Amino acid sequence: MGSVSETGGVDDDRLARLVLARVAEPGDAALARAVQTRGAAHVLMAIGEHRSGLPNEGGYLTRLDGLDPHRDQQQLTDCGARVVVPGDLEWPSQLDDLGDTAPLALFVRGSDLRRCVLRSAAVVGARAATSYGVVVAGDLAAGLVDRGWSVVSGGAYGIDAAAHRGALVGGGVTVAVLACGVDVAYPRGHVALLERVAVEGVVVSELPPGCHPTKSRFLTRNRLIAALSRGTVVVEAAYRSGALSTAAAARRLGRPVLVVPGPVTSPLSAGAHRLLRAHREETVVVTGADEVVEELGPLGSWAPEPPVTASPSDGLSPQVAATLEALPVRRGVSVERLARTAGVPPATAARALEQLRLLGLALVDDAGWRLAERPE
Amino acid sequence: MGSVSETGGVDDDRLARLVLARVAEPGDAALARAVQTRGAAHVLMAIGEHRSGLPNEGGYLTRLDGLDPHRDQQQLTDCGARVVVPGDLEWPSQLDDLGDTAPLALFVRGSDLRRCVLRSAAVVGARAATSYGVVVAGDLAAGLVDRGWSVVSGGAYGIDAAAHRGALVGGGVTVAVLACGVDVAYPRGHVALLERVAVEGVVVSELPPGCHPTKSRFLTRNRLIAALSRGTVVVEAAYRSGALSTAAAARRLGRPVLVVPGPVTSPLSAGAHRLLRAHREETVVVTGADEVVEELGPLGSWAPEPPVTASPSDGLSPQVAATLEALPVRRGVSVERLARTAGVPPATAARALEQLRLLGLALVDDAGWRLAERPE
Repeated sequence: MGSVSETGGVDDDRLARLVLARVAEPGDAALARAVQTRGAAHVLMAIGEHRSGLPNEGGYLTRLDGLDPHRDQQQLTDCGARVVVPGDLEWPSQLDDLGDTAPLALFVRGSDLRRCVLRSAAVVGARAATSYGVVVAGDLAAGLVDRGWSVVSGGAYGIDAAAHRGALVGGGVTVAVLACGVDVAYPRGHVALLERVAVEGVVVSELPPGCHPTKSRFLTRNRLIAALSRGTVVVEAAYRSGALSTAAAARRLGRPVLVVPGPVTSPLSAGAHRLLRAHREETVVVTGADEVVEELGPLGSWAPEPPVTASPSDGLSPQVAATLEALPVRRGVSVERLARTAGVPPATAARALEQLRLLGLALVDDAGWRLAERPE
Repeated sequence: MGSVSETGGVDDDRLARLVLARVAEPGDAALARAVQTRGAAHVLMAIGEHRSGLPNEGGYLTRLDGLDPHRDQQQLTDCGARVVVPGDLEWPSQLDDLGDTAPLALFVRGSDLRRCVLRSAAVVGARAATSYGVVVAGDLAAGLVDRGWSVVSGGAYGIDAAAHRGALVGGGVTVAVLACGVDVAYPRGHVALLERVAVEGVVVSELPPGCHPTKSRFLTRNRLIAALSRGTVVVEAAYRSGALSTAAAARRLGRPVLVVPGPVTSPLSAGAHRLLRAHREETVVVTGADEVVEELGPLGSWAPEPPVTASPSDGLSPQVAATLEALPVRRGVSVERLARTAGVPPATAARALEQLRLLGLALVDDAGWRLAERPE
């Protein structure tokens, strides 16, 4: 490891982070703490000399042995990825909220990452999504980009794909955070989708090119989805869904966790509903993009009240309302009879009827007073 | 009104309440306050002498004119209803929580009302329910009676009917609280259902026999549904649903409001979801009877954790889990290669592989180590 000098400089730090990203697993807190206090170059040197004191030093050394810097550089160049480390303009500062699980470096394909996630919501959910979930996630993403938000997700089948596609179809920006290298064709069926995301948004990973996904990498990746976005929306999640780990990460970061409910008869919404029950203080129901923006956006961006059909009988005084309710539909009746049915004095009923006639709600003919036909 | 004596007695009180129930609309707070301080008999007397000082005295007098005590008594007898007033053993004391909107009297057909609502949940929702809502409400009611709870609802089409039927099918007790007299065939299609409810449970109303429902009577009736039960479950509700007024009444009473979510694409769940957002502090998602009992029952009756499929890889140490994840599916590899992929020292990998072999998760043959086939 001759390229890492003892004195340490900006480039040494970048290079050392690259090497450490290759030898350590994402979210290695002991390593991250050491890097934050001693610097990446010094930590790497200490590992090489078997004196880092880190619990997984043996593991790092096993992988250091197999490292091929030339091949690694070639992989980076081939896939057109750039390396972004803390201190770079493109580094999203919200990742620092992760503390000692912040990534050592990011491998980025596409647009400027920091700008793409400035006003972003994560939309995550089940791989085995139902058609309900796919439609809802796609509409939600399209609605978010319509409102100037970008959509962060994990590039997986199901809800993730629907979210990316909804954003793309809406002409917006979407960010795919992968649990493998940004050059790895995973999932295989999403090669074209991820290519399009890289062109119109960003594909990003903390794993160097060539790395394959593992179960634990999916879980550690989820904290990045939560940390990059202002809040996480769970669309469909079964009881044991990875999306719940993204929600947990958002909660730990103090970011809003929003849940789109679904049929209680659907196992694919069971995890989402459990989230609402188990973390009721910190979890909010949302049913559309307006409400997501209301929850995540700055104050003042309230969702519009849903339209309700105004009724001409809205806002009547109790006695007028009682008279209206007492009006027969067909055969007219006398004021006295009406007053008795309504339980109001006859004089009050007479005044109320006059008011109702002016509102077009009551009619009078030879038989007496009755309800006017409503135009519907 | 010669039967109401100035001195007043228990029977005078009962009779006076009956007359007042005929001349006043439900929820008349000014009248209820007067009855609570001066006694029903005295208030009725004062009304008859035009000196009650009550704001709607004119209305009461209009209806007093048309009263026919013999016909009223005949109607009561004909429909087999009994009158229950405060102080009676059958009076449900939780109604007193309504304060000055407590009913003056109740007209009851069927079993003992107080006992039937001791451990009860209200299940309410849209009349124009979807098949989803009908299935969910029916299952919920059946699940509640299975757990020894009774089900209170409003006897309407849709969710109400599904709740009553679910309870009846489950062999349990259900209570229909009507917005009309207990002898009035409303809704017409529910005559047989309400007859069965009266046989196996209770049909109750604060409106005397013969009274017809009005819009405002539906709304005031809803407070009784909320007050009689330990909490209110809303299954489906559109934006402008009467079920939301039952929820509001429960909230005012400090009783839990529980909401069964549904598809966000369904207008029939929009009101339910808005309830969850607008009153998030006081509203809880429930997906089944277990959770309703957990929310309404005494402490200790927690819903069982939903079954999750246990995986043999649960609870492995991080290094063993990393080794497991690094195992190839088909062609076996050496311990050294595996250690590098997993990022653990070779000796650790070797120990981990031995443990995984014992768990039936790893296999070794001439080619090396690979994943054992999972029985699925």
